[in-house]
This record gives sequence, C-alpha cells and structure tokens, in this order.
Amino acid sequence: MKVKGRNAVREAIVSGVNIDKIMASRSNDKVLLDIINMARNRGIKVQLVDGRVLDRECENNQGIIAITTEFQYSSVEDILAVASSKNEPNFILILDGVEDPHNFGSIIRVAECLGVHGIIIQKNRACPVTDTVAKVSAGAIQHIKIAKVTNINTEIERLKEQNVWVYACELGGEDLDTANLSGNIAIVMGSEGKGVSALTRKLCDGIVTMQMYGKVNSLNVSVATGIVLYETVRKRKS
Amino acid sequence: MKVKGRNAVREAIVSGVNIDKIMASRSNDKVLLDIINMARNRGIKVQLVDGRVLDRECENNQGIIAITTEFQYSSVEDILAVASSKNEPNFILILDGVEDPHNFGSIIRVAECLGVHGIIIQKNRACPVTDTVAKVSAGAIQHIKIAKVTNINTEIERLKEQNVWVYACELGGEDLDTANLSGNIAIVMGSEGKGVSALTRKLCDGIVTMQMYGKVNSLNVSVATGIVLYETVRKRKS
Repeated sequence: MKVKGRNAVREAIVSGVNIDKIMASRSNDKVLLDIINMARNRGIKVQLVDGRVLDRECENNQGIIAITTEFQYSSVEDILAVASSKNEPNFILILDGVEDPHNFGSIIRVAECLGVHGIIIQKNRACPVTDTVAKVSAGAIQHIKIAKVTNINTEIERLKEQNVWVYACELGGEDLDTANLSGNIAIVMGSEGKGVSALTRKLCDGIVTMQMYGKVNSLNVSVATGIVLYETVRKRKS
Repeated sequence: MKVKGRNAVREAIVSGVNIDKIMASRSNDKVLLDIINMARNRGIKVQLVDGRVLDRECENNQGIIAITTEFQYSSVEDILAVASSKNEPNFILILDGVEDPHNFGSIIRVAECLGVHGIIIQKNRACPVTDTVAKVSAGAIQHIKIAKVTNINTEIERLKEQNVWVYACELGGEDLDTANLSGNIAIVMGSEGKGVSALTRKLCDGIVTMQMYGKVNSLNVSVATGIVLYETVRKRKS
C-alpha cells in the first residue's frame, strides 16, 4: 500500500507500521528533511528521487510517499480487546456500506480523534482501506483497528450477546440529545445513498436521530458520524 | 452555473432559483421523470438529450443538470436580516480561507441543516461557490445566504460593533463543552492547512476548542464545523 503526503507518512513512521521504503523528492524543504531524518533514524530505507518520479507513483504526494506492506485488518475480538486493555466500556463504530473513499477516510480520522476503539466494515458493497482512504485519514489509519466482516448483521448479534448495546443513527428515532449512550455501545452509520438497511435497523437496540432545522436536512455521512461520535463522547464523560 | 445531480436539481426547482433550462437524459427512471414533471409544471424548459451529451456537459450528473443564472451572493446585512426576520439571535459562520470545494460544499450543507443564518467567506485565497460546491452541498446552496467579502477581519469588527460575539474554533481555547455560545454569535473556522490566521484569532472575543482523545487529533474542516455547529445549537436550545 502507498501512504502519501507529509502528515500521513510521518504518522506511518511514528506508529511503527511496516514500511518497505520511503520515496521522497530531492528538496531543501525543512519539513520534508525532518521526516526523512526521522525515517533514517529508525532504519527505514529512504530513496531520493525526482519530483516527477513521485508524481508517476501517485498524485498529490506533497513530495513524499511510503511503500508499506498491505493494510492489516483486525478482528472484532481485537477491537473488543482494546476496550479491555484501556479499562473502558466498548465504543465501536459500524459502517453499513459506506462506499466513498473520502467519506471513509474522513470517518476513520474523526473516529480516531474521538477515541473509538475500532471500526467494523463489511466485505462487499463497501469501500475497503485503499491508498486514498489512508491519505484522507491523515494517518489515523495507523492508530485504529478496522475489522472487515462478511455480514455486519451477524456481528451485531454477536456484539449484543456480549452486552454491547447497538444503536443505529437514522431518521425517526430518539433525539440524540436525550439518548442514553453510556456503557458498552456500538453505533451504526448507514451508506451515502440508502442509510442503514432495514434489516440492520431492526436488529439494533435503538435508533438515535439528530435534530435538524433546515430545508435540506440530510448530512454527509462523515459529518454526521463526527457529530454523533462527539455527542456520544460528551455524554459518556459527564 | 450548472447544478448537477438529482437532489441538487430538485432543490433548485423547489427553491425557485432562476433556471434557464434543465437537461435530462431520455430515460424511464421514475425519480428522473418526477423531477422533469415537477420542472414542467413550473414552466421550466426541459431538454431531453442523450446521456453522452449530459456527460460532456459535466460528469457524475445522475442523468440531470440544471443551467441556472450565476450564483447570487448576499451581503452581510442580508445575513443579519435573516435573524431579525426569524426573531432569532444571530447565528453566523465565517470561513477564514477554506480552499477545497468538497469541504466548502459539505460545510454549506451542514450549516443549512443546523439553521445557520448565513456564511461569510473571503474573496481571495478561498473557494468561491462553484458547480462542485453546489453539487456537494446537495441543494443547500439554494437555502442559505453566502456573503463574499474583501476582508473578513473588517467584517468581524463590524459584527462586534453590532453586538455579535465572535468565536474562533482553534486549539488552545476554552473547552467547547463549557463555552457560553448563547446570544448573537459568529463562529470562525480556519482553512484546511493553517487554521484561523493569527490576526483574525486576535480580533475574536474568544477561542473554543474541541477535546480530542486520539493520536492524530486534527479533523477535516467540514467535520469540525459540523461538530461545532451542532454543539452550538444544542446549547442554544437548552
């Protein structure tokens, strides 16, 4: 997998992900040189190349890319183990078919920032972790566990058996402001076009709904995820 | 200006924006036919064309585009007048140099959904309203006032003279959870790379900061805007 861009490459180095090599453009740019030094100090091979060589590898690289071994998905058990190791109640995000890599990357970024233990995505009809996703996540991909499962409904049933409460974010549910989101929880966000599927919604313990006040009243899924996660954290703190 | 995509075109029709004509691909798709009927019932000229003709006009058109007269920016006074007409305290969003059209469109969408009265952007070094912005806003562009000003700092000073409290969202300020955001307020969001500029920050009445718990701890500007606006609305309601 290619990690491109300064922040993303720096995060990849810091987080200790397996990097085969780094390719950087010949430059006197201080930020770039800092990242290169950081990599060399950790014994990572750095290849200095012409800017055009980098651009052939991938666009918008900001002068540096890291070639890493393929993204390693985690298991749902790995995600549950994060909560145990931190001695926190489970805080899981489930994506029911998010398809756009920019949305997925942006969701990973906000989930990591807000302390989510892991993200569960489905194998089919959903965006996997790609180079674009990694770039848009601004390096967050290195710090959060992502499990890719065959059927999220099966996983939701298994989570419920383990005393995790599962809430879907959709229209027509309880007001997000008053919903009780304490304890072990997983939040399900739907796909860009269709929201949370009917069967998945039925399996959930509850539906939470954001109040809106405009004429359009539908949000981009990454913005909606940010709001729901922030509200959840705010309530869990207080 | 071209408005493309089904939701965006439908919103343009409903909101009564000046549409020169609509171009739609010949199809029996029910959603498409509904939009075409809606347009014809309002006396809007609809031209049925081959899908490839539409694709030449613009990509990702979902079978329909509307050609509208140029986007009409509002003045800051127009935005202040929205609050008066609704008998609400002012609720304004100021963007200090957001450059990415996807971010800007997504910000317009969430601002409209959360009842913001208007958005102030600057003329230079910032993304104006483009076709992409209109598309990403999912039609919200038709329902919210946007003022394009030469210097946002001058506008911030004028707003303060009119008893609007101006808060920047940045690192190192008061916790968003405890900040008092009642009354007439404007919220300043910074650009993708640089955040809120130093001079603008100095002019503001206060800085609010979102708490974060991860390793990356920087958010996409549209996600951050969504969270700050939602929190502001939640506090103002209660």
